[in-house]
Amino acid sequence: MSRFIISTADPNADPEDSVTVPLLSGLRSVPNSSSQVAIVGVNVCPIESLDYEIFENELFKQDWRSRGKLQIFQYTFMKWLLCFLIGLIVSLVGFCNNLAVENLAGMKFVVTSNMMLERRFGMAFLVFSMSNFVLTLFASIITAFIAPAASGSGIPEVKAYLNGVDAPGIFTLRTLVVKNDRDRRDLVTCGSAAGIAAAFRAPVGGVLFALEEMASWWRSALLWRSFFTTAVVALVLRAFIDLCLSGKCGLFGTGGLIMFDVYSESVSYHLEDVPPVLALGVIGGILGSLYNFLLEKVLRIYSLINEKSIGYKIFLACSISIFTSCLLFGLPWLATCRPCPADASEACPTIGRSGNYKKFQCPPGYYNDLASLIFNTNDDAIRNLFSKGTDNEFQHSSILIFFFTCFFLSIFSYGVVAPAGLFVPVIVTGASYGRFVGMLVGPHSNLNHGLYAVLGAASLLGGSMRMTVSLCVIILELTNNLLLLPLIMLVLLVSKTVADAFNGNIYDLIMKAKGFPYLETHAEPYMRQLSVGDVVTGPLQLFHGIEKVGNIVHVLRTTRHNGFPIIDEPPHSECPVLSGIILRAHLVTLLKKKAFLSTPDLTGGFNASKQFSAGDFAKRSSGNDEKIEDIDLSEEEMEMFIDLHPFTNASPYTVVETMSLAKALLLFREVGLRHLLVIPKISSRSPVVGILTRHDFMPEHILSLHPMLVRSRWKRLRFRFPALSKLF
Amino acid sequence: MSRFIISTADPNADPEDSVTVPLLSGLRSVPNSSSQVAIVGVNVCPIESLDYEIFENELFKQDWRSRGKLQIFQYTFMKWLLCFLIGLIVSLVGFCNNLAVENLAGMKFVVTSNMMLERRFGMAFLVFSMSNFVLTLFASIITAFIAPAASGSGIPEVKAYLNGVDAPGIFTLRTLVVKNDRDRRDLVTCGSAAGIAAAFRAPVGGVLFALEEMASWWRSALLWRSFFTTAVVALVLRAFIDLCLSGKCGLFGTGGLIMFDVYSESVSYHLEDVPPVLALGVIGGILGSLYNFLLEKVLRIYSLINEKSIGYKIFLACSISIFTSCLLFGLPWLATCRPCPADASEACPTIGRSGNYKKFQCPPGYYNDLASLIFNTNDDAIRNLFSKGTDNEFQHSSILIFFFTCFFLSIFSYGVVAPAGLFVPVIVTGASYGRFVGMLVGPHSNLNHGLYAVLGAASLLGGSMRMTVSLCVIILELTNNLLLLPLIMLVLLVSKTVADAFNGNIYDLIMKAKGFPYLETHAEPYMRQLSVGDVVTGPLQLFHGIEKVGNIVHVLRTTRHNGFPIIDEPPHSECPVLSGIILRAHLVTLLKKKAFLSTPDLTGGFNASKQFSAGDFAKRSSGNDEKIEDIDLSEEEMEMFIDLHPFTNASPYTVVETMSLAKALLLFREVGLRHLLVIPKISSRSPVVGILTRHDFMPEHILSLHPMLVRSRWKRLRFRFPALSKLF
Repeated sequence: MSRFIISTADPNADPEDSVTVPLLSGLRSVPNSSSQVAIVGVNVCPIESLDYEIFENELFKQDWRSRGKLQIFQYTFMKWLLCFLIGLIVSLVGFCNNLAVENLAGMKFVVTSNMMLERRFGMAFLVFSMSNFVLTLFASIITAFIAPAASGSGIPEVKAYLNGVDAPGIFTLRTLVVKNDRDRRDLVTCGSAAGIAAAFRAPVGGVLFALEEMASWWRSALLWRSFFTTAVVALVLRAFIDLCLSGKCGLFGTGGLIMFDVYSESVSYHLEDVPPVLALGVIGGILGSLYNFLLEKVLRIYSLINEKSIGYKIFLACSISIFTSCLLFGLPWLATCRPCPADASEACPTIGRSGNYKKFQCPPGYYNDLASLIFNTNDDAIRNLFSKGTDNEFQHSSILIFFFTCFFLSIFSYGVVAPAGLFVPVIVTGASYGRFVGMLVGPHSNLNHGLYAVLGAASLLGGSMRMTVSLCVIILELTNNLLLLPLIMLVLLVSKTVADAFNGNIYDLIMKAKGFPYLETHAEPYMRQLSVGDVVTGPLQLFHGIEKVGNIVHVLRTTRHNGFPIIDEPPHSECPVLSGIILRAHLVTLLKKKAFLSTPDLTGGFNASKQFSAGDFAKRSSGNDEKIEDIDLSEEEMEMFIDLHPFTNASPYTVVETMSLAKALLLFREVGLRHLLVIPKISSRSPVVGILTRHDFMPEHILSLHPMLVRSRWKRLRFRFPALSKLF
Repeated sequence: MSRFIISTADPNADPEDSVTVPLLSGLRSVPNSSSQVAIVGVNVCPIESLDYEIFENELFKQDWRSRGKLQIFQYTFMKWLLCFLIGLIVSLVGFCNNLAVENLAGMKFVVTSNMMLERRFGMAFLVFSMSNFVLTLFASIITAFIAPAASGSGIPEVKAYLNGVDAPGIFTLRTLVVKNDRDRRDLVTCGSAAGIAAAFRAPVGGVLFALEEMASWWRSALLWRSFFTTAVVALVLRAFIDLCLSGKCGLFGTGGLIMFDVYSESVSYHLEDVPPVLALGVIGGILGSLYNFLLEKVLRIYSLINEKSIGYKIFLACSISIFTSCLLFGLPWLATCRPCPADASEACPTIGRSGNYKKFQCPPGYYNDLASLIFNTNDDAIRNLFSKGTDNEFQHSSILIFFFTCFFLSIFSYGVVAPAGLFVPVIVTGASYGRFVGMLVGPHSNLNHGLYAVLGAASLLGGSMRMTVSLCVIILELTNNLLLLPLIMLVLLVSKTVADAFNGNIYDLIMKAKGFPYLETHAEPYMRQLSVGDVVTGPLQLFHGIEKVGNIVHVLRTTRHNGFPIIDEPPHSECPVLSGIILRAHLVTLLKKKAFLSTPDLTGGFNASKQFSAGDFAKRSSGNDEKIEDIDLSEEEMEMFIDLHPFTNASPYTVVETMSLAKALLLFREVGLRHLLVIPKISSRSPVVGILTRHDFMPEHILSLHPMLVRSRWKRLRFRFPALSKLF
């Protein structure tokens, strides 16, 4: 935690309060304090911003000029090598993960099914629920004790990081090779693209997901590098799958590059197929926004439980696990047994492996369609739902039960202290109701039920995650059916539009609930009515170009600011001159190295580049940075001076105080800043009147300064779920 | 042309010189004059920047506040409606275009082939060459007289426009509905996405192309809107194709949603297939960069011819047409006739329609494989090359001849005064050499020759256009083979990397040759060594908040600046105050409306919002703006005053003079600016020391100010084509 522990504004505040506040009302509205806390995993973390801006001071410029071609080549080569390694490692991890899931969960279902065949139902339930319980316990203990940030899907955390939010729990294992936040950001972007690419074997979809959903900044070089990374993933995965096709991967043996192949040459649709597809889109939009709404509420309740102690967390996870086991084991008994079709495409009932026709409790020659869905891994369930030529395989009631089970179980199991995704549950849920709609439309349609399931999955993804291009490509890469593209686009269009009328993207809701100070792309309308001068709050801390050591130590110890303007004032210059900005971390390094001058004039011939190298100022991994509290200085040293000029960034971004907040936000976000200097519009005053940070752009901060804006009519118009809101 | 005609720096300069200069040395290096010319089509156009920045003055703010919800809704609805219309119109145009090409060109080939069947070779040649000649003449006359900007592919022009470059020839038909450059930019982006979507029936590829290659700025809202537009395209096209499948579209009858379907379930490849694919990538990279190099040189020669007169232009186009006809008709005679295979998938020889086996001059039962490629439309030639199960259909020599023909013909026919694309010719060329490589590798590979052709097309596209994700998706959408994805990614990766070592992206080369002042994403390394103070050149023109009419008129008449800082100075204020910036167009409107004050003090109670509405300042379509020369003012009026405050943008973007040029460029480009105010670092001076525009960031301008940087070692390392360079 180290330097990141920041006292909240009121040190006597109820500790419980500080946890619940971000959940209930977003951020604390304390003017110009940097006290922001986020809930990462189930921990409360103080929040810092990241230094994405290139810091240009004399020392760094000299270092840069002195670099030879070889060093530049090495640097470039290193960046590409890291991308290659990320691609390689992520695809290995993804593959092993897939292999483990397919084999562990597959084995669990096979063993249970075999016991069911022998009609040892009690024993089967025990094996089923115990294996679930043990796996959950294992996962939640690891998560709770070792990597609390790993709970949940991780996507909101990465998204916040790429926006410039640094909650120290997010990346505990920061590589030491990368020296600055900017390079790290690029690698994290490539990594997130690679993650999606490996999880869904969708390399192009991975790049697009990183671009559309994750990244706050984008440049063409990054597109190129993340394409490289996912290409590595695609090639490595392809090689592994080649290996598996020869039957060496146990139950995973049939895994191809395309997960749910629904290609059928005969797919053709006409104008009359459009209305049911439109209906699917509308339903998907409503269900998706409802899903987001409920998930956020459940997360809020869970965080109340989780914050109590690790024991509570694990207890919660285990209870959910037992509840789930009972539900999953009990539900198939509701379904009536159906006779095996004569022309079944595979053995019926399916025994000893995953497949379409699970026997469960049924007599020989019969199968239980609900068990076929529930007693399979998620991947197999999706494959069942997407498959063509199976229009008569499922009953209406079974599909409906399965839909409700998935919908609510996935919401309730997300917030527990264990890593869990959103993508796959949403696809299963969407596929089941899509198939249900297909069954209702029945013979009036040219599309088979499997294709309806695909469109249903697309609509719920669109309604919950609100992406367009990347979802489109991911679905294409998952299902391998390009002919369906116009319909998928239509469904995504409709479901996103409908869902946007109710609430936001699921990842944004989770980020907000966790309290990350995320900078939105769009300025709120009231920001156009305010100027930056209206939100800057004092007092401004600044240093002189030649500053007394004691002053620096005092300011660093009493404030938590991370950037300080440097102003040269008389007598050192004729009139106030803005020299630039200096970072806290650099000041601490200077104090630690004790590069002091005995007098405030520069006759000593102080040479920065001789005493320091750029490496001295490279950012350490989080938690390893020096703290001001650790530096001991003698009384005599406190009276000495430091020449800050060589370490001052002479290229600070600035705005005039009359600049509208909306335009300042645009600059802040597009360029990726941490500090923005506010300069006066009148020449004669001090060259800097304030400093803007991420915090100053947060709606909560602005509204606390200007409460009359709260009720202004510029709020985004949205429908609410009024009845549901009362439940929570 | 109107206000866009800007005299070049030296009015006595040879007019020919002003045309050739941008081609030969990029831009003129005249310090701080806005005299930039571009060659759009074959016309020389003066260049302006676009006002993408939101202009925030009191009047607009008041107008914005007074808007009701209905108006905001109307505005939003209008934007979506326009996107819908763009999608609809583009898909209609694209479809009709396709229909016309397939039927016109198809008919030409069928008629010629029929004459060949009757062995009337002379007549066949006459029909063939005359129809080519007439079509070319028609196209070039239309282009030369009506829409000179339509020559070439149009993509470089749109790319420059989206970067903020406004050469008036680019969009002659500016819609009057859209009132500002910012909204227009969004629509142009959506339009370009729709264009690619319609041309290749690749809706997702279209969005990505617009994102990766065209757009200089991007926001998620734009992704969403362009996705909407291309979804409309996809649905409309799908409906038309449905119509055509019932056989109502003549020769176009078989056009499906996927243009070149190469789906084959049996596609499987292993490690031993990687080396030939890598080789394809390397060759594609070299050929692609060579293609770009040659195309640029040819464009340069053509522009020397084209600038002479319209007659020369049309003559050039017609000569190229005749030369092409002779070549295409003569070449198939070189190929030996091959006997029809016994198990041919279609009738051999193919008679009366396009197809795989053209008879040409061959005896019955034989076919001419080169004629099968040449005497088909481009689409059919690609389909032939991509087709599977045709590994024995082509001879090595025929494919090689076809490759060279395509490679050079497409280069020579691009620069003539007629609309021409680059995508399809590059695909044909790439497919032919890919197929050739496939034939060389032959039985040692698991991939059939058709798949090699696909990979070859990918490699040449990658080598010439240097896109990654969008090309990947476009190729997938064209060929419908997702299993090939890892190999396509590999090929694109290698070909782009190889080609980047030689030269730039083809569209960038064309833009440079045309003289567009395009702002690059990356700052040149020497920009990090310069501060903005080093490139700002005087004298700075500024106005006071209350300014004399005569002064304004004088400055507007004697300079061509488009933005003027407004400074309030004593006695109107105690010390100099930076009020903001005002645009030339707004000043002209004020002068025209004659909203003058008789005295320089504000006792008159001047009320801007009563006299003006925001609509008065909306940007007209180009050429319709008022000019300062058209405004007549009496001697008395010249002595009056204007209060500029309500029309001043109080939110100008600013940089300190010590800011490094690289960081200022980042701001300028990321935020999309036209003017950037430079403020002094010392408080006591005037609040503004200069103004930066696009021109000040152009390497040519900077290097003319600091010639010692030309030979600095920071230039990008690239291999050259030394021997070839001497040829031109």
